[in-house]
Amino acid sequence: MNVLVINAGSSSVKYQLFDMTNETVMAKGKVERIGMETAMLTHEPAGKLEIREVSEILDHTTAIRKVLRILTDPKEGVLRSLHDVHAVGHRVVHGGETFSGSVRIDEGVKQEIKRLFDLAPLHNPGALTGILAVEANLPHITQVAAFDTAFHQTMPPVSFRYPIPSVFYKKHRVRRYGFHGTSHQYVSGRVSELSGRPLDQMKMITCHIGNGASVTAIMNGKSFDTSMGLTPLEGLMMGTRSGDIDPAIVPFAMDKEDLSLNEVNSMLNRHSGLFAVSGGLGDMREIIEAAQEGDRNAQLAFDMYEYRLRKYIGAYAAAMNGFDALVFTAGVGENSALLRKTVCDRLSFLGVKLDDEANERRTGDDRIVSAADSRIEVWVIPTNEELMIARDTFREAVNETMQPST
Amino acid sequence: MNVLVINAGSSSVKYQLFDMTNETVMAKGKVERIGMETAMLTHEPAGKLEIREVSEILDHTTAIRKVLRILTDPKEGVLRSLHDVHAVGHRVVHGGETFSGSVRIDEGVKQEIKRLFDLAPLHNPGALTGILAVEANLPHITQVAAFDTAFHQTMPPVSFRYPIPSVFYKKHRVRRYGFHGTSHQYVSGRVSELSGRPLDQMKMITCHIGNGASVTAIMNGKSFDTSMGLTPLEGLMMGTRSGDIDPAIVPFAMDKEDLSLNEVNSMLNRHSGLFAVSGGLGDMREIIEAAQEGDRNAQLAFDMYEYRLRKYIGAYAAAMNGFDALVFTAGVGENSALLRKTVCDRLSFLGVKLDDEANERRTGDDRIVSAADSRIEVWVIPTNEELMIARDTFREAVNETMQPST
Repeated sequence: MNVLVINAGSSSVKYQLFDMTNETVMAKGKVERIGMETAMLTHEPAGKLEIREVSEILDHTTAIRKVLRILTDPKEGVLRSLHDVHAVGHRVVHGGETFSGSVRIDEGVKQEIKRLFDLAPLHNPGALTGILAVEANLPHITQVAAFDTAFHQTMPPVSFRYPIPSVFYKKHRVRRYGFHGTSHQYVSGRVSELSGRPLDQMKMITCHIGNGASVTAIMNGKSFDTSMGLTPLEGLMMGTRSGDIDPAIVPFAMDKEDLSLNEVNSMLNRHSGLFAVSGGLGDMREIIEAAQEGDRNAQLAFDMYEYRLRKYIGAYAAAMNGFDALVFTAGVGENSALLRKTVCDRLSFLGVKLDDEANERRTGDDRIVSAADSRIEVWVIPTNEELMIARDTFREAVNETMQPST
Repeated sequence: MNVLVINAGSSSVKYQLFDMTNETVMAKGKVERIGMETAMLTHEPAGKLEIREVSEILDHTTAIRKVLRILTDPKEGVLRSLHDVHAVGHRVVHGGETFSGSVRIDEGVKQEIKRLFDLAPLHNPGALTGILAVEANLPHITQVAAFDTAFHQTMPPVSFRYPIPSVFYKKHRVRRYGFHGTSHQYVSGRVSELSGRPLDQMKMITCHIGNGASVTAIMNGKSFDTSMGLTPLEGLMMGTRSGDIDPAIVPFAMDKEDLSLNEVNSMLNRHSGLFAVSGGLGDMREIIEAAQEGDRNAQLAFDMYEYRLRKYIGAYAAAMNGFDALVFTAGVGENSALLRKTVCDRLSFLGVKLDDEANERRTGDDRIVSAADSRIEVWVIPTNEELMIARDTFREAVNETMQPST
């Protein structure tokens, strides 16, 4: 069975096609600049050269048609016909309190994704457009939605409620939702498999630190707390997002610089974080290089990023009264040995001890990087959200075929 | 030498008169509802009955005159004449980046306190009014200002900078200042004295949890990080303040409920915290009683308050790579054995172990409440900000008399 995984944004569609008999990627790619005359399709069939095509693609339906066409292209394609796409899985950012797992998409699910636009105005509309575009091209195919928030629906009220007037929870659904759920769930599952300890007997702290970044406290396989909140702004310092600040800074800044609601949102989401402190650098590699050359702003940006991450790890250790494993994933988490080392060395009071050589080794593999006598296991696990979505989609599609038709 | 300590707010003046030869309180009291016909003076001379007087007091100068009159009253007073007030110390909330300790007040200091109105619009104006009112009544007396922020001026940039565009720091002085500094400094000093370990060899986490609440990481006697920020809103959940929330909630709430900047500030500072979650209870004792009678909102309020405090303790443990002593002070910290027990029991992974009997004992004394085999010492230290201010004032006044007059 082949599963196509779609991640649709407002002007882009990313895709991966999986052969679920062995969980391999047959092809992946993306369409960018949808809505423009110069939209670009980039297609990478497994083991072959990448292909790029620039053309006018004015909507998502056309974008999906282009993707399906190249997947079945006699020369560049990997499928004989559209019948070889058996199910489609979609990444949807916000599932609200409705979805605590992946679901097969029907009218009700689409309505609910739409109802949640309010909570994820930048993300859910793109995902729904992607779903409708697949529907337009493959009217009868099984589609599944996997939500970034779903894994975190196990959080208890003590973690997810905010201490503000309850009208905001009851009327406007203001609570902690958390994001990157698929990634946190994937890496925690991998660590359990690799360490040979059942998930329901482990306490883990998983650090998904890429351009966006979040930390999750996972107790017995369930999300207990996570650093992102109502929106992906809360928590860690990120590439361009501030993360936690005194909430009183928001009205203060609006007043002093005469900012509108949109402007203050944009300031905190797009002009803050590493970018703001380093004075314009947005990438951890650049920042580390600049810091090593003596750039003090870059050094401060690195230090703040590391310090704020380390404080969250300490907070979640206290939240669970201890933990067994610390997991790093996503761009920075997988690639920055220096960040991992700095964090872990300063957590020696918890018995965290790195194997420096393992930590420095550059590989794309799942690996343990703690020393044999570390009280806490430290893991680096390259994330694979698409595989998780493909698995959920596969499972739903199989369940469906096993049910008596009505 | 006798020192009068003044804590002046916009419509109130609190005072304590110290005999610094033995650091005893000779009298204390307050004037409330300044500006009204029904202003009330409450005066408690040491070892005598409390006196209350209701009268018209329209400004701070009159309030201070009333205080000085009752201190020197032949019957109710404790001083023979005004010459027996040798110096006056003032609590000032915001000292900005200018003041890292207490200072003798001169024209420049008054100007600076005024310049800082912007950062503490609810607090600094009252303090300045108090200073001017003392000056009007005792024109030549030595006055000293002690700042709530001063102790925290040792924080490094990694703690005090926010990851937002640097214009806010450079132009508007937006950074973490922290508050309750006098209290955090006082209790950390007491713990060092009582445990017989030099301050500069200890790492402490001090929890000042009263109606306002903050936690401080104190490394080698110096504030390294603290939970309150630009304003006293950030950090812990408090009586009526939210503490940390997703900063994106601020514009979201303003949009949904059409709130002005003042309204959203008021919502987060005066209608949130324990009060909001418990459904109208504002006091920890009431909340614990209600929770014990099965009130689920009260239970959630307690749980969130405890959980958020415990996470800060874990975060600051990670910030300092371990700690030696955990200190509780202020209303809730000194009086709620249940809160201390809940926090400490859930930090057993750090080797925190309470002596339950010592923890339950109700005394107003400084005391250790951890078990003999606890890896971390746990202390309860009744705070005494007024004594700290009196000591600083005494020191400045003595220094002054020892300098050659010009």
